[in-house]
Amino acid sequence: MEPAATTRAGPVVADAADLADRARRGDRRALARLLTEIENRSATAEAALRILYPLAGRAHLVGVTGPPGAGKSTLISALIGAVRATGRPVAVLAVDPSSPITGGAILGDRVRMMDHAGDRDVFIRSMASRGHAGGLATATIAAAAVLDAVGFPVVFLETVGTGQAEVEVAAVADTTLVVEAPDMGDDVQAIKAGLLEVADMVVVTKGDRPGADRTAGRLRAMLGSAQATGRPDVLVTAATNGAGVRELLAAIDGRAAALGARGAGSDGARLARARAQLEGIVAERIQARILVAARTAETEALLRAIAAHQIDPYAAADQVIAAIDGTPRV
Amino acid sequence: MEPAATTRAGPVVADAADLADRARRGDRRALARLLTEIENRSATAEAALRILYPLAGRAHLVGVTGPPGAGKSTLISALIGAVRATGRPVAVLAVDPSSPITGGAILGDRVRMMDHAGDRDVFIRSMASRGHAGGLATATIAAAAVLDAVGFPVVFLETVGTGQAEVEVAAVADTTLVVEAPDMGDDVQAIKAGLLEVADMVVVTKGDRPGADRTAGRLRAMLGSAQATGRPDVLVTAATNGAGVRELLAAIDGRAAALGARGAGSDGARLARARAQLEGIVAERIQARILVAARTAETEALLRAIAAHQIDPYAAADQVIAAIDGTPRV
Repeated sequence: MEPAATTRAGPVVADAADLADRARRGDRRALARLLTEIENRSATAEAALRILYPLAGRAHLVGVTGPPGAGKSTLISALIGAVRATGRPVAVLAVDPSSPITGGAILGDRVRMMDHAGDRDVFIRSMASRGHAGGLATATIAAAAVLDAVGFPVVFLETVGTGQAEVEVAAVADTTLVVEAPDMGDDVQAIKAGLLEVADMVVVTKGDRPGADRTAGRLRAMLGSAQATGRPDVLVTAATNGAGVRELLAAIDGRAAALGARGAGSDGARLARARAQLEGIVAERIQARILVAARTAETEALLRAIAAHQIDPYAAADQVIAAIDGTPRV
Repeated sequence: MEPAATTRAGPVVADAADLADRARRGDRRALARLLTEIENRSATAEAALRILYPLAGRAHLVGVTGPPGAGKSTLISALIGAVRATGRPVAVLAVDPSSPITGGAILGDRVRMMDHAGDRDVFIRSMASRGHAGGLATATIAAAAVLDAVGFPVVFLETVGTGQAEVEVAAVADTTLVVEAPDMGDDVQAIKAGLLEVADMVVVTKGDRPGADRTAGRLRAMLGSAQATGRPDVLVTAATNGAGVRELLAAIDGRAAALGARGAGSDGARLARARAQLEGIVAERIQARILVAARTAETEALLRAIAAHQIDPYAAADQVIAAIDGTPRV
């Protein structure tokens, strides 16, 4: 990324400025292309983020997580309708930590959101994994900042599957919804407890099914015993008749107002986003320097010497680091 | 690791020198402790490797990989017996990329190797994953160098499961055996093809079962069409009566002699090991610097400024990297 930025900085910056400008004026193709650049960690992505980042900081990032089959996509589709009923545009970033090959579920989920396909104020996008989970979180935060800067006041971050990526994304959302379907068995409560720890609100979906209120009651009891203060609310929704969806949006908006009143930069999620971005970019730049150093004839000679056991790898590493320190700064 | 090495360098080096000396004289407890230090990436591990690395470079590293149930551990147990029959000591490193919780299979496999439990010239050790797969490969290579330095002429590297870790470990073995059980279905051949690419030899186990020769024939046909030159041999073994095991060891020893005649440092596996070690150590040292820089008050102020959208994360990253460049060298 760095060499490209250096050697063709002019065209890249002009292209990025053009994309950023068009995206801000409502050009959805330009916005989609910007998010692809971010997935690819291109020089254009960096130039565009440098332009757009100061314009962001207003959107409320709502993480939506929970086990497969809990009804996350259906809930988000209902919430999209509720946000649109208030006249606001809304965006969804679906974070898929799995490979493209096994990512069938998320494509099916996208189809379910097609209720909103004709509405240009609804923007839905999947972020695919390029490498490790940390990189996915960094790219998702950058994508959310772009959506923020171009004027989406609410951005849903949907995570698929369970595991580290979910917890990472939850840590950087302003508000995290943990979604549960009714009738969970007693035996899975221990697993759920870990996910509940990251919840700002817990949503029991499929509220028209028997057992939904019982599940909500159980969850309230679990949360009550686990946390004395800052206990997340448990809400029940039903996508079939829309019950509870407006109330859920009101709770989300209420939290956004409360966080906003505390002032930007004062809360954990914003700092977590800042840290993830800063660490991701620093690691990427230093990695680029290592790659440059590794391509030198000196490093090749060191590798041959290590392979022949003429030098130990620690002594060789010291020489490479000295060379990296002497590399012109990017 | 670095601060520890700096502040108590004397005791650490003395401890490492003592462990290395005892391990070279045949003290298996000292050897086991050295490998634990390597898993933990401790300052003692670095000091010991600096002592032992120049003494290594003689062992033949034999990777053994293949799908679960192919009979890898049973084959290695038979090969251990064949090596011991020639009077040489032998070591096994079992590389387990899974977590300790799901690593039950490998413990069961270790039990099967207990045939050799009373023989102090047979050393068997599991290397657990600490973090990502690349780190595991680096630690495994360092462990192999220690076994090499203390006098094991043959080291088997057994990998469990399928995936990236297997391919990584195969890349750093001098000789890679891909193990298959008879009667594989036609439908799995496409998956196997990827694994066959890393094979120096293909071993069909359970050769006393019907279908073993047919499987060997199929594999020869697949390999024949895939690669014109350097085609790996397909051998058939049977653990029940030991058929084919001595022939397999003869083929392995023949390859070791051929590689040795070409001269140290001239072949791909040795260079791959050198590269994995060098890159691992360089990345670890630079990561330590980043962590030091991230703890400063200046970085905390930058994080708050990013969170408040007063600075973009790229500009902030440039400042952090400038600070890292100014950090006293470790």
